[in-house]
Amino acid sequence: MNNHWIAVDWGTTNFRAFLINHDEIKERLSAPLGLLQVTDRQFATTLQSLLGEWLTKHDKLPILMAGMVGSQQGWAEVPYVTLPAHAGDFATHTAEVATPWGSRCHIVAGATCESEWGFPDVMRGEEVQLLGLAERYPAAEHRVILPGTHSKHARLRDGKLIDFSTFMTGELYATLINHSLLGKDLPSCEQDDAAFDLGVANSKNTPFLSHAIFSARTLRLRGAITPAQVSSYLSGLLIGSEMAALDTDNAWVVGSPALTLSYQRAARHFGITLHAADGSDCFVQGLSQIYHSGVFA
Amino acid sequence: MNNHWIAVDWGTTNFRAFLINHDEIKERLSAPLGLLQVTDRQFATTLQSLLGEWLTKHDKLPILMAGMVGSQQGWAEVPYVTLPAHAGDFATHTAEVATPWGSRCHIVAGATCESEWGFPDVMRGEEVQLLGLAERYPAAEHRVILPGTHSKHARLRDGKLIDFSTFMTGELYATLINHSLLGKDLPSCEQDDAAFDLGVANSKNTPFLSHAIFSARTLRLRGAITPAQVSSYLSGLLIGSEMAALDTDNAWVVGSPALTLSYQRAARHFGITLHAADGSDCFVQGLSQIYHSGVFA
Repeated sequence: MNNHWIAVDWGTTNFRAFLINHDEIKERLSAPLGLLQVTDRQFATTLQSLLGEWLTKHDKLPILMAGMVGSQQGWAEVPYVTLPAHAGDFATHTAEVATPWGSRCHIVAGATCESEWGFPDVMRGEEVQLLGLAERYPAAEHRVILPGTHSKHARLRDGKLIDFSTFMTGELYATLINHSLLGKDLPSCEQDDAAFDLGVANSKNTPFLSHAIFSARTLRLRGAITPAQVSSYLSGLLIGSEMAALDTDNAWVVGSPALTLSYQRAARHFGITLHAADGSDCFVQGLSQIYHSGVFA
Repeated sequence: MNNHWIAVDWGTTNFRAFLINHDEIKERLSAPLGLLQVTDRQFATTLQSLLGEWLTKHDKLPILMAGMVGSQQGWAEVPYVTLPAHAGDFATHTAEVATPWGSRCHIVAGATCESEWGFPDVMRGEEVQLLGLAERYPAAEHRVILPGTHSKHARLRDGKLIDFSTFMTGELYATLINHSLLGKDLPSCEQDDAAFDLGVANSKNTPFLSHAIFSARTLRLRGAITPAQVSSYLSGLLIGSEMAALDTDNAWVVGSPALTLSYQRAARHFGITLHAADGSDCFVQGLSQIYHSGVFA
């Protein structure tokens, strides 16, 4: 029996795929070919060319996808699953899309909930990582940060996704650096730990973020930080202001090493221990869970 | 004796001038000719052409200027006055610039302080409006909001400027609407009171602004607000989050009627009475105070 299948994380700006056999990653590939790069809705053709020889070596591999590929702007819109929900709920909420080469191909739903602050909230792709984390590191409760353009703070209980809140940290950072006075005439900047730490420490000065960020300007005017330090300082301020929302001294951070290290560094200023887990590993484990819950049954 | 003189508010994007006689505005003019529009540092020539016949009708009128014209990017950098300070302190901290037509021309310094949250802060131009407000409406204490790109929350005691905090409300709004996911594919939007009120009310849900603003996306996804309402909703959220910083039930708002009305509307949700004062009137009154403190003596 052929136990191979393909796990795909297809987001707005990136594509990642994993060839799986017996729950192990056999091969992996990634490309900066997010949904925004797909023209004329050529999703099937793009997927075929990205997966290349995986499809020719194995006949009609089942494909399970998650991420923004299931959004309005993606291949097929899959209605959100309303939380609380576990892996089984996601397995029964997929949309099937047709592939010219005969693979069965399903897209997993995203998740929606009321955030702990009473706002409607949505995610697509992160729910898979969260389910994977909970299976990989079982616990009665998980608090998890998934950093990124739209950073997610999630809560799980007994492996079940309870709720989450989005913080626009990554997008705020990029938008302010590229389009506001704060990023004006900056030289090319590298990660600067001292400036980052100052930003994290200063984020505690005030709960008012729109005041705090102006200090990226005034500290520069005063010569307290150099132009080359502005971006690290702002990053520290924004990530620090996220930490203040985490009412626990023990949580997880799931993502790429570059991001999880920054979050761990910031967390130490708040006396919070952040355990890091690899985003791809969690993604594959979560999608495997959904796969085994009978998507292709 | 010729008591005419000219008051100029020259900012980054706008130029406003007032012909004054015996502390009364005789004529006024404005142009969208901020410092960014001045090429090759042609400040004197630009000023001359803007003031036009005022300069020919009256000989060598004294000119007193405030605003970003005194910044590094302006005509001449005038070092900030460190607060607390009163009008007399500003009168002794001006920079004189030369005019080819023989007017004496001084630029008033901006102000710097530690904000009430412990950040260094700066303003240029608003300090003049604040001094004017305090003289026009005397009180032991003033709390004042000056809305704008960089909204200022200031405190005065017995007409003396104590400190202030900048909130990047206007710039955050413009940056998010023009460059983030929140503003994607918006139709042309008009002020929508219902959406603005919802934003103000929702700003109370959470102290975490980078979470709150994501609701401009999710409420739109849910159909709770229309695309045309997004900008008013976001404006309400941002102005509401400013109101939360105002620990008083009685304050002033100084600016143009369009902005002061929005702030007064938001303040009512917080049980705060905001008294409105006209920005130009306060500016002229404040600059007159500085003028009479002996700038040209």
